[in-house]
Amino acid sequence: MSGLAGVIAGSSAICTCGLGNGLNYRGYDIKDLALKTEFEEVAYLLLVGELPNKSQLASFKIKLTRARQLPQSVKEVLKALPISTHPMDMMRTATSAYGCIYPEATDFSNQLDKAIGLLGALPSFLLYWHHYHKHGKEIELKSEQDTIAGYLLERLKEKMPLALEVKAMNAMLTLYAEHEFNASTYANRITASTLSDIYSCIITGIGTLKGPLHGGANEVAIKFVLGFGTVDEALKEVTNIFEKKEKMMGFGHRIYRELDPRSPIGFELANELKELPDSDKHLFDIAKAIRDKVKADKGLPDNIDFFGGLVYHYMKIERLYYTPLFILSRAAGWMAHTFEQRANNKIIRPNSQYNGPKPRDFVPINKR
Amino acid sequence: MSGLAGVIAGSSAICTCGLGNGLNYRGYDIKDLALKTEFEEVAYLLLVGELPNKSQLASFKIKLTRARQLPQSVKEVLKALPISTHPMDMMRTATSAYGCIYPEATDFSNQLDKAIGLLGALPSFLLYWHHYHKHGKEIELKSEQDTIAGYLLERLKEKMPLALEVKAMNAMLTLYAEHEFNASTYANRITASTLSDIYSCIITGIGTLKGPLHGGANEVAIKFVLGFGTVDEALKEVTNIFEKKEKMMGFGHRIYRELDPRSPIGFELANELKELPDSDKHLFDIAKAIRDKVKADKGLPDNIDFFGGLVYHYMKIERLYYTPLFILSRAAGWMAHTFEQRANNKIIRPNSQYNGPKPRDFVPINKR
Repeated sequence: MSGLAGVIAGSSAICTCGLGNGLNYRGYDIKDLALKTEFEEVAYLLLVGELPNKSQLASFKIKLTRARQLPQSVKEVLKALPISTHPMDMMRTATSAYGCIYPEATDFSNQLDKAIGLLGALPSFLLYWHHYHKHGKEIELKSEQDTIAGYLLERLKEKMPLALEVKAMNAMLTLYAEHEFNASTYANRITASTLSDIYSCIITGIGTLKGPLHGGANEVAIKFVLGFGTVDEALKEVTNIFEKKEKMMGFGHRIYRELDPRSPIGFELANELKELPDSDKHLFDIAKAIRDKVKADKGLPDNIDFFGGLVYHYMKIERLYYTPLFILSRAAGWMAHTFEQRANNKIIRPNSQYNGPKPRDFVPINKR
Repeated sequence: MSGLAGVIAGSSAICTCGLGNGLNYRGYDIKDLALKTEFEEVAYLLLVGELPNKSQLASFKIKLTRARQLPQSVKEVLKALPISTHPMDMMRTATSAYGCIYPEATDFSNQLDKAIGLLGALPSFLLYWHHYHKHGKEIELKSEQDTIAGYLLERLKEKMPLALEVKAMNAMLTLYAEHEFNASTYANRITASTLSDIYSCIITGIGTLKGPLHGGANEVAIKFVLGFGTVDEALKEVTNIFEKKEKMMGFGHRIYRELDPRSPIGFELANELKELPDSDKHLFDIAKAIRDKVKADKGLPDNIDFFGGLVYHYMKIERLYYTPLFILSRAAGWMAHTFEQRANNKIIRPNSQYNGPKPRDFVPINKR
């Protein structure tokens, strides 16, 4: 029973991960959401339950945009953290500090506002910290871009993003936004189940996502792909790995046995991005060859992390930021689960099987 | 299945909560540990598996004492947080910042050192923040007291603690140190199960403990007791509460149906502390009368939180610090569970039962 694999730990109306081969958020197919919406529409859908109409989306975006400004205390905390800080630790700390400044009401009556505020502030944590520590400058936390995707891309690289890049970032944020009772989401629900505040719930999510068995797989996958100069070299190494029976990141999935429904979308995005003037097209061929060989030899399909890493790479985002970007996206899913847990709450508290020492007599320190 | 009540979610060798009426840490009875050891011996037992001998304890204490000094960055973070910050949010943020400065090795080879360092630093977070924001002074983070209990009491109140107070604080830290797969501990294990770092695990614990259904019950219980001037008033109000079928904090326990084995220890400590010259003895009589009536009328025994709150009250600790003190103590249990999870790890990822909307057609924003 360890790992709770296959255990139904509760019910949820948020997503259908693993029913058939599909992935629906509140009934909508992931393909439509990833390619035909902005991430803000998806975040609204997850938090509120329905897709927004034009005016609902506009007012949602205004709140998100306002939240880009950070309180001075949070800036001071971000400045105090050294440049050596792991970006995930920085995101965890900034979220925690932010929660000190804008606490949630204990009756949760302002939970949606607090959720929107944090969702809008999360990209600013990364942007502010990045420029302060990498370039020694305190950037203005604003942009003409009215989407999180556009804001992130523009201010991270300090130049206007291409439309294709904004489309790809919106899609990536949507693809990673929600995935049922995965480890970070379920841990977040346990925090919610004691009626703790929303920031504590999200911080549980961040700390759990940080683990290499959860977030971070796309970092490892792209690092692997980047290690090869030619398709032949890559295929030889894959054979090697199979012989040594080692694990390859970016392949297989505990839930999706046949196909990760997010994978073809990541593949298509990488395929489009490789045509940009300064993209290394060859990398795409190497990745494709690896994918085909793993499928042919082992029957293992690639999951979203395999081409997902390449999508970020083509957007010239540094590798250590892939998992922080995962936070910005999954935060919407975590928050939806926090709300759902609260709405029908029972504290989550399992039991364990004791396998330790039998009762033994106490020995005072003088006789040890 | 929601709440995982009665579900065996894994095995553990750390404590026997709920086997019979006993509570053993690694086989030793909680009564012996609470009254015959310092908390440091118990923390060592939880982390290492055996009670320390004299020289092991001495070297453990040296490491803990050294860790009282905080890095400058953490002090800056603590200064940046406003005085209005909830002390639990402050502890969560300080722990997170501390983890940025002293990261754990990704292969966990230094996990014990990192655990000891954090355990030693946790009291300093509270002490430094308290004096900086309440009294505008930056205190020296040192003391002749070689126990966490003594250090806390001396520097919180800035006067020498009595031997009885140090004994009571040691006992309280021990009583709250570990309790099997409770919500914060199990959430901490999920964070550990993705192979995240130890600080992320402990922060999950802190955020989960913060919820009023978990930590904080002793704050509520003592607030209730303090509301009465006489035994008669108290008994009348209890009758009222029974008539309104409201819940009383500090009574009953999901695991202990007959007796919380920690309760008689808390009772006895309060009984001793009430004899101190400036203790309000009457409060003890009121608490005792409430306890007896709840037991007589409803058959519900008091749990540790009922007299535990009174113990802290008699030590003149402010109520909002009771749950932060719970952190200092339970951190030892959380860390032991982090180590145990890592030693035989499988990612914890349950499933959910979908009860949301059926698949529905996507509608583009222009048509919503």
